[in-house]
Amino acid sequence: MISIADLQRRIDAGDLSADAALAQSLEATNAQEKTIGAFVCHDSNARAQTAGPLRGIAVGIKDIMDTTDFPTEMGSPIYRGYRSRGDAAVVMLLKQAGATIVGKTTTTAFASSDPTPTLNPHNHGHTPGGSSSGSAAAVGAGMIPLALGTQTGGSVIRPASFCGTAAIKPSYRLLPTVGVKCYSWTLDTVGLFASGVDDVARGLAAMTGRPELLLPSDLPTPRIGVVTQDFADAPEAAGAEALQMAAKAAERAGAAVRTLHVPEIIAEAWRIHPVVQEFEAHQALAWEYRENYDALAPNLRGRLDESKGETPAAYDAAIAVASRARHALAKLFDEVDVILTLSAPGGAPKGLGSTGDPRYNRLWTLMGVPCVNVPTLIAEGNLPVGVTVIARYGADAQALAAARFVEQALNHG
Amino acid sequence: MISIADLQRRIDAGDLSADAALAQSLEATNAQEKTIGAFVCHDSNARAQTAGPLRGIAVGIKDIMDTTDFPTEMGSPIYRGYRSRGDAAVVMLLKQAGATIVGKTTTTAFASSDPTPTLNPHNHGHTPGGSSSGSAAAVGAGMIPLALGTQTGGSVIRPASFCGTAAIKPSYRLLPTVGVKCYSWTLDTVGLFASGVDDVARGLAAMTGRPELLLPSDLPTPRIGVVTQDFADAPEAAGAEALQMAAKAAERAGAAVRTLHVPEIIAEAWRIHPVVQEFEAHQALAWEYRENYDALAPNLRGRLDESKGETPAAYDAAIAVASRARHALAKLFDEVDVILTLSAPGGAPKGLGSTGDPRYNRLWTLMGVPCVNVPTLIAEGNLPVGVTVIARYGADAQALAAARFVEQALNHG
Repeated sequence: MISIADLQRRIDAGDLSADAALAQSLEATNAQEKTIGAFVCHDSNARAQTAGPLRGIAVGIKDIMDTTDFPTEMGSPIYRGYRSRGDAAVVMLLKQAGATIVGKTTTTAFASSDPTPTLNPHNHGHTPGGSSSGSAAAVGAGMIPLALGTQTGGSVIRPASFCGTAAIKPSYRLLPTVGVKCYSWTLDTVGLFASGVDDVARGLAAMTGRPELLLPSDLPTPRIGVVTQDFADAPEAAGAEALQMAAKAAERAGAAVRTLHVPEIIAEAWRIHPVVQEFEAHQALAWEYRENYDALAPNLRGRLDESKGETPAAYDAAIAVASRARHALAKLFDEVDVILTLSAPGGAPKGLGSTGDPRYNRLWTLMGVPCVNVPTLIAEGNLPVGVTVIARYGADAQALAAARFVEQALNHG
Repeated sequence: MISIADLQRRIDAGDLSADAALAQSLEATNAQEKTIGAFVCHDSNARAQTAGPLRGIAVGIKDIMDTTDFPTEMGSPIYRGYRSRGDAAVVMLLKQAGATIVGKTTTTAFASSDPTPTLNPHNHGHTPGGSSSGSAAAVGAGMIPLALGTQTGGSVIRPASFCGTAAIKPSYRLLPTVGVKCYSWTLDTVGLFASGVDDVARGLAAMTGRPELLLPSDLPTPRIGVVTQDFADAPEAAGAEALQMAAKAAERAGAAVRTLHVPEIIAEAWRIHPVVQEFEAHQALAWEYRENYDALAPNLRGRLDESKGETPAAYDAAIAVASRARHALAKLFDEVDVILTLSAPGGAPKGLGSTGDPRYNRLWTLMGVPCVNVPTLIAEGNLPVGVTVIARYGADAQALAAARFVEQALNHG
C-alpha cells in the first residue's frame, strides 16, 4: 500500500516532488485497475497541486459524491452520465488541502448492497466488501494512498477489514455530507481509507483543518473495553481470533483490557437500526423508487419493497431508542477510553454475490461514534481481518490514538 | 388567500373537482404574477391528480429544492438552467399526497439575504421578506394555497409574518432536506406557508402521513409563556403590539398566560447561531465560494468573507452551547405548553433593499423546535405582523393546536 505519511515525509524533505508522488499512484492504478476494477472512471493525466498538506496525494472518491471533474453515477443506470453542477463539500475539503482527485470509485447502487464488479485485491475470488467497494479495493491494492467512502450500516469499516486497510468512520457530521447522495440522514457518514492509522489521521486532520487529530508523539496507554456484540450472533473463527489477538496484543503492550457488557438498550438500538435506515431511505430515494422502479438494483428494490409499510410511529420509537442508547453508551465511556470490537464476521466472503455482512458495524453508525479499522491478521485464503476501535462521540483523536496503539502492539507482538 | 381546508371540504363533498380547484390557483397566479413576481417559473398548464388528500392543491416550491419538472436555479446565475436528475424528498412527499407542483418560487441566492425582485402582496413598496420570498408572497397574494420554503435563520416565519400567511417551521428533520440546497446542515429546515393554521396543519399532515398533526375538534387550552427575547433588542411598536395583542386575546379566551424569563444559556445560543451557520456554510458552499466567487451575490459573499477565519474550535464551542441550551429549553417546557414570541421586529421594511431582520427567529431554528406563525394585526401601510407559537421539540401537533387557539382568540377578540 502507499502510505500518506511516507509520501508527506519525502515531499517535505525535498526527496520527492508532489508530481512524482502523484505519478506513482497513477502508474500503480494503470498497472492494477484492469484486474481489480476499483474505478468507475479515472484520469491518468491528473496533476498534483503545488501546496497544501495533501499535495501529491491521489484520492479516489466514492461515486455517490458530486464531482465537477467526473460524472457521478451512484452505481445505478438511473444516473448514467449525470454531471453535478458543483463538488461535494468533502471533495472541496480535499482540494483545499492540496489533494488531487484521480477518479471515482465503484459503489453498490446508492450505497446499498448490490455488488459491484470490483475484486478483492488480496484474493480475486472474493468480494472487497461494500458499499464503498472501489475505495477500499483501490487503497488495499496499493493504487492510491487515500479514498473516501460512506457508511450507513457498515460500508466503510467492513470493506476496510476485507481489503486490509485502515479506515475511519468519524463522529457523525465531523465531515459534511453536502453533495453526497443520501440514503439515511441520521446514519450516512463520510469516511476515509488509507494504508495505516497514521495515514488516516493525516488525511482527516488535513481535510478538517484540525491538527489535534494527528497522532501524538507519545501515545497514551488506553483503557480498553472489549465488546463481543453477542446480540449480533457469533462471528466466524477468523473474526473471533482477530478480536482476541488485538486484545491480547494491547494488553501485552500495557493497556488495561476488560470485557464490557453493554446494557440491553444498546442491543435494542442494534435491532432498530434497519427501521431508521429504511424509513429514511423511502424518503431519500422516493424519486428513484417511485419513478424508476424497474431500473433499481434488485437487492435495494427488495429492501425498499419489504420496508414499505413502516410507519412514522415505528420510526419515532426507533429514534427514541437510539437516543436512549447514545446516553447509555456515553456512560460506558466513563469506564473505558475505547471499545474494541469486531469489524466483520471474518474474512471477505467468497465470490461477488454478496458484499458481506455489516452486522458488527451498524450499531456504531447509529450511535454516531468514531470507529477506526485496524488490520489485524491474514486468514486462510490470504484474506485480511481487522478490528474496530471506538471512542466517545466527538473523540475522534482519541479513537485514532488508541487504534494506533493497537496497530503498534500487533506489529510488535 | 386560498384555503386548503376550504378546497378539501368542497372537493370531498363533490362540490368542486380537483381540476377546478387547481384551475382557480392557476388563474389567480396568471392574474397577479406579473405584478408580484413570486415565481421564477410556473406552469399554467399543470394538471390536478385524481387521488390523495392534496389533489387539486397547487404548490409553489422554493427554487433551492430539486424538481424534475422545472429548473432549480438557487437564486443565483451559478445555477442558471440547472436541471436536477431527481425530485427533492419533500417534492416527492407532496406528489405522493396528490398535490400539483405549479412552479418554482423566488429565493434569495442560496437562501441567504440578497433580495429578489418579488413584491409584498399587501404593499408593493415593501419587501415580502426572505429568503423564501416567492413562497410567502405567492400564498399571501392568494395565488396558491400552499408553498414550501426553508429556514436557516428566519426564512420561513419572517416572510410569513410580512406577507400575512400562516406558516410552520417544523421540528428539525420532521421533513427531509434531501435534494434541498444546503446552507447549514444543523439549521436548514423545510417549512410550509398556507392561509391559516388549519391549512398548514393539513398540508404537513398529508406530506408526512401523520394524521395526528391535524387539529383536534376540541382544542386544548394551552399554558402560554411569553418570551420577549430582550437579548435580541427591542422590537418596533407594531411588533410589540402584535405580541401583546396575541397574549391578551389568548388570556381572554381562557389560556394561562405568563411572562417567561429564559436562562442565560439560551441567550448565549442566540448569540452563537451565526457561528454555526457560517462555519457550515463555508463547507456547504465551498464550491460556489472558491470556484465562482465573482458570481456570488454580494451580501452572501460578504457574509462568507467576514466569517472566513472562523475556527473549528469556535464552531465546536458553539455546538456545545446549542446542546446545553436545548436541554435548558426542554426544562422550560415543563412549566408551559407553548412559548409565544415575536415573528419579526414589525411590519415588512420599506423597499426591496433588505429582506428584513431574522433576529427573533434564529434562536428557535438552532433549538430545532416547531414554530408556527399566526397573522396577528395589520400595521400602518397595510403591513401584516404575526406572532410565533413554539412547542417542545417533536411536539409539532401541540404547536399547531396552540397556534390555532391563538388564531381563533384573535379572530373572536
